[in-house]
Amino acid sequence: MTDAPTLPVTQTQVRLIGRPSQGRVTAGLFQVGPGPVEAPGDGQVLIRVLFLSLDPAMRGWIADATNYRTPVPLGAVMTGFTVGRVVVSRHPGYGVGDVVYGSQGWQEWALSDGSDIHHKVDPAWGPPSLALGVLGHTGLTAYLGLLDVGQPRAGETVVVSTAAGAVGSIVGQIARLKGCRTVGIAGSDEKVRQCLEEFGFDAAVNYRAGGDLGAALDAACPRGVDVYFDNVAGPVADAVLERINVGARIVQNGTIALGPGAPPAPRINRTILVKRARLEGFLVLDHFHRFPEALAELSAWVRDGLIRHREDVAEGLAAAPAALVRLLAGENTGKQVVRVAP
Amino acid sequence: MTDAPTLPVTQTQVRLIGRPSQGRVTAGLFQVGPGPVEAPGDGQVLIRVLFLSLDPAMRGWIADATNYRTPVPLGAVMTGFTVGRVVVSRHPGYGVGDVVYGSQGWQEWALSDGSDIHHKVDPAWGPPSLALGVLGHTGLTAYLGLLDVGQPRAGETVVVSTAAGAVGSIVGQIARLKGCRTVGIAGSDEKVRQCLEEFGFDAAVNYRAGGDLGAALDAACPRGVDVYFDNVAGPVADAVLERINVGARIVQNGTIALGPGAPPAPRINRTILVKRARLEGFLVLDHFHRFPEALAELSAWVRDGLIRHREDVAEGLAAAPAALVRLLAGENTGKQVVRVAP
Repeated sequence: MTDAPTLPVTQTQVRLIGRPSQGRVTAGLFQVGPGPVEAPGDGQVLIRVLFLSLDPAMRGWIADATNYRTPVPLGAVMTGFTVGRVVVSRHPGYGVGDVVYGSQGWQEWALSDGSDIHHKVDPAWGPPSLALGVLGHTGLTAYLGLLDVGQPRAGETVVVSTAAGAVGSIVGQIARLKGCRTVGIAGSDEKVRQCLEEFGFDAAVNYRAGGDLGAALDAACPRGVDVYFDNVAGPVADAVLERINVGARIVQNGTIALGPGAPPAPRINRTILVKRARLEGFLVLDHFHRFPEALAELSAWVRDGLIRHREDVAEGLAAAPAALVRLLAGENTGKQVVRVAP
Repeated sequence: MTDAPTLPVTQTQVRLIGRPSQGRVTAGLFQVGPGPVEAPGDGQVLIRVLFLSLDPAMRGWIADATNYRTPVPLGAVMTGFTVGRVVVSRHPGYGVGDVVYGSQGWQEWALSDGSDIHHKVDPAWGPPSLALGVLGHTGLTAYLGLLDVGQPRAGETVVVSTAAGAVGSIVGQIARLKGCRTVGIAGSDEKVRQCLEEFGFDAAVNYRAGGDLGAALDAACPRGVDVYFDNVAGPVADAVLERINVGARIVQNGTIALGPGAPPAPRINRTILVKRARLEGFLVLDHFHRFPEALAELSAWVRDGLIRHREDVAEGLAAAPAALVRLLAGENTGKQVVRVAP
């Protein structure tokens, strides 16, 4: 039996207080303020949040528009994936010291009955923040979206958008490990350089270079496109769609190029039909049953140095709103996390 | 050993002599004229064409635009699925009297080395023209597109467009046999009546009725849409897409509402993502390996009276051009075939 730890009475929390206008996310939509630290009841644990994940999908979580889930209510603690340590446990499934990956949100301390804990983090995987990135939903999104939905075969050409980003860079590396030709699309020459030099893409294209994106893709994909892992939609996706092969698979993992009021575009149904292509929406949370197998393979690849990844760490929970704005502007480099516990 | 039959020296053929302007197919694009009947060489058979199938996809086969295959060349005998009887055989795989389903085209007699014969027709299935309809690529399209791509589960809601048509009416009946709620979309009150009274749809909607298609679909699909077998694309498909459930499957079997110059439309990627839906192009010719199993089940259903089907028979090969125009105008009732041999 161990002594009960001394716990603080108050903590810092970040609450959502406004909704984006025209899709524009600002730090002013969030309020940093004090909240209570409560003692766990029977069947609950108290978690010290160590790291918070920031994700492009948060733009949707806080908007009114149709989304995967009910929007985060105004006045509520902002939703987010976290990795934390169990400090007090009155739950039979968790012991003090367990590191857990869950949805504890933008706060320093969280009570949980286990329903918002997704899994325990294996200490052998390395630093706990990896559980939010390459060994968390970011890496799982890349792994399961690419392999389960995209189903690449050796020798095929795999194209990914936002290729230097946290998900895209892992998609490219997994596709390469599976024997595919990998082509990245990114938004700057520096990101193209990262794709080629750090993440090992066979080719990479800067869609903002001002030239002919179609011609650049033709040069990068001499045998057409078999799998497109799409994080953006919009005109970049149109250019890829013009180059898909018969039987192509398109993983719709994100649509960040489609703000409200996106202009109409030519319909894609005829291309889908003529190419007998498959366009499929992917949300990693639908695939919990595959997490253990995916994490086993991903963690081995990371341990063996076969997958490179970057982290962009913002310091302190109060920095989260500005870091989210920065992420949505594409200014981060690598997986964006916030260090919540010093 | 049997006596060699007396064969004619000339026959009637129909050749393609023009391409549709603005997608408009007219009888004047075809020329009915004489051609030779040639004796089969070693490894060949001579086939008497009994029935010719007319199909909406022919609009694409004769156009210049991108399609599944190279367009039918100008001056060539028009391409088409046929059922015919082997009259002379110098091929070890076919005997005199065999009835075969193949791509012998718009002619009365055809030589074949077997490469354009798809399978033999089992006489137990009934009249040979069925091999072009409910027991041919029409029924196979419905069966394989719905079951292999749409993957309906009992209790789900299946919507099909051109629901009174040859493919759509079979899709609805198979979905019903699989325990689904079936909703048809058709273009007239008479076709709606057929859907309900002949083909057993649970509900049917006339998209040309002038009212609110969305409201009509809401009433017909109180639990949303799980599978959409789409033969049209365009605004009708938009209305269905607004009502799909999470995990919905959309089978893109046709896009007849999308002529050249179809206006741009809102992008669908966000809906596909939010609903984790799957949109997949389907072409029955990709699925030859599944034909035997599908035909076994389909023929049993037809024999047992579980699937109703209609045939619209044009008399004589010379009637084929006008019958195709009529089909593309939606004026046929049931599977359109042409009786080639009296």
